[in-house]
Amino acid sequence: MKSFNVNISEVGPRDGLQSIHTIMPTPYKLLWISRLHEAGVREIEVGSFVPASLLPQLADTAEVVRHAISLNGLTVMALVPNLKGAQAAIEAGVHRITIPVSASEAHSLANLRRTRQAMVAQVREMVALRNTLAPHVGVEVGVSTAFGCTLQGLVPEDDVVRLAADLAEAGVDEIGLSDTTGMANPAQVRRLFRQLREVIGAKAGAAHMHNTRGLGLANCLAAWDEGVRTFDSSMGGLGGCPFAPGASGNVVTEDLVFMFEAMGQDTGIDLEKLLLAREALHAALPNEPVYGMTPEAGLTKGFVYADGRAPRALSGSASHG
Amino acid sequence: MKSFNVNISEVGPRDGLQSIHTIMPTPYKLLWISRLHEAGVREIEVGSFVPASLLPQLADTAEVVRHAISLNGLTVMALVPNLKGAQAAIEAGVHRITIPVSASEAHSLANLRRTRQAMVAQVREMVALRNTLAPHVGVEVGVSTAFGCTLQGLVPEDDVVRLAADLAEAGVDEIGLSDTTGMANPAQVRRLFRQLREVIGAKAGAAHMHNTRGLGLANCLAAWDEGVRTFDSSMGGLGGCPFAPGASGNVVTEDLVFMFEAMGQDTGIDLEKLLLAREALHAALPNEPVYGMTPEAGLTKGFVYADGRAPRALSGSASHG
Repeated sequence: MKSFNVNISEVGPRDGLQSIHTIMPTPYKLLWISRLHEAGVREIEVGSFVPASLLPQLADTAEVVRHAISLNGLTVMALVPNLKGAQAAIEAGVHRITIPVSASEAHSLANLRRTRQAMVAQVREMVALRNTLAPHVGVEVGVSTAFGCTLQGLVPEDDVVRLAADLAEAGVDEIGLSDTTGMANPAQVRRLFRQLREVIGAKAGAAHMHNTRGLGLANCLAAWDEGVRTFDSSMGGLGGCPFAPGASGNVVTEDLVFMFEAMGQDTGIDLEKLLLAREALHAALPNEPVYGMTPEAGLTKGFVYADGRAPRALSGSASHG
Repeated sequence: MKSFNVNISEVGPRDGLQSIHTIMPTPYKLLWISRLHEAGVREIEVGSFVPASLLPQLADTAEVVRHAISLNGLTVMALVPNLKGAQAAIEAGVHRITIPVSASEAHSLANLRRTRQAMVAQVREMVALRNTLAPHVGVEVGVSTAFGCTLQGLVPEDDVVRLAADLAEAGVDEIGLSDTTGMANPAQVRRLFRQLREVIGAKAGAAHMHNTRGLGLANCLAAWDEGVRTFDSSMGGLGGCPFAPGASGNVVTEDLVFMFEAMGQDTGIDLEKLLLAREALHAALPNEPVYGMTPEAGLTKGFVYADGRAPRALSGSASHG
């Protein structure tokens, strides 16, 4: 199987869709995910196993998983907040589960109603469940509020690194860092990922950056410099209005892929086919804004992909919502 | 005099205003520039000495210069395209002139109606004029299309570096690189600024980055990593709609300052006072969009400036046009 320099993990179907009120009908989700896969995306977080009463937008996750695992070579992930969710995800057939654990005690109590150490204990139970039911399923943690918290403000870097060490000890396969609130800066990103790698080695995982203050791609570049090779992003920046306070503001997949390909780092993703996935997203959610500057500006004149291919067309779509 | 880690060179009054059709009345320009100065901006490109018939937006540059040079500690720059402009700028009392020279032969012929070598010869005459009339005035060149050209596509890196060497030999004090068309990527930015410094040493100047494809701040970070300490940017991204093809899309001053201050690099600029300058800009051009994500999202909870000061207020303005 061909290997690539960068792994773009598309989180739009989970993180994007849970952040908007509109519910995307299941057939549109399946089509969108197929289009992403056709564009070369190899990892998608397709939903979340939480009670439908809490997140009706993701109530169809089991069905979405069944479709996604039929796509050749795609790694299918789902977010699970607890043991019950982990069991449902494993039964649905996901390849990896990802668990949110907060580095901020204030955020952990407010959001997950558990202390960080109670979360670590619960993660340990989820790992045990995985070991029993489905040893081939990966268990990841995204450490949220790793770069700051809107409740407690600064989150000490030692807290983040110690939590990651506890999670690694609990048997988690991969631990990434999330800038949940868009507070990270490149110097901090470099420091934290460097420490993370020093402490948990190859278990150091993805960078999940937000573009709340415009620094999303700069923070991804900083993480790349520290050896991070998996980046979470959301097609069209779905779910976050970059111009609104408190917005989710995930890094835009299209711009992130453009950055790495232009740098000569192979993502395996075809930017023009990604525009077809973008059209599928827009058709599914005609009233939601779809962001991204590269799709608007088009590829640069003379652009070549990292693998040497020239694009088939040079101009972008104009589907700005 | 206090020294700072980063020099933010505000180009909005020249680059921003020349890119829009509305003419900002002179009193508004003077107020805007004063507010920028009060916020701690220490270098402003206040206008351009070109025929008023070509750029009526900048016809009052001499008057603007007279006001700007009265502001304590401010370095006042103007763009000049030719010998006549250089003479007018020197007579008006600017501290530095900046000359655009294109690295792309196609762009040079189309835009300046001269070959690159003819431009170098003209720059040599401008340096001679400066030496005679006003030896204290600095002469800078911003090498445009240094990272790609919408006419010829790729611009060979050797062309850029050789042109910079010729310009240094012609007596220019400082030579920066401009991503005129928003085509740069961080890997290229690092390669080119590294080569520039190898060839012309301390004469290596500013990074002038555009945000056309969302990579503006990532490219500034890449330039910073290579030792660049002066960055051109435009308040509110004035003059470029980041969502429109072919847009100017200068890096937004507010977001750039936030990035460096958050990284612990002292810009000398007060972000809250910068919002007052932003209000002055918005009042002067009520129908022009004013971009910037940090002003919309506000400063992060727990934010401290690089010099250790805490902000007076935490929330941003909501003056998004």
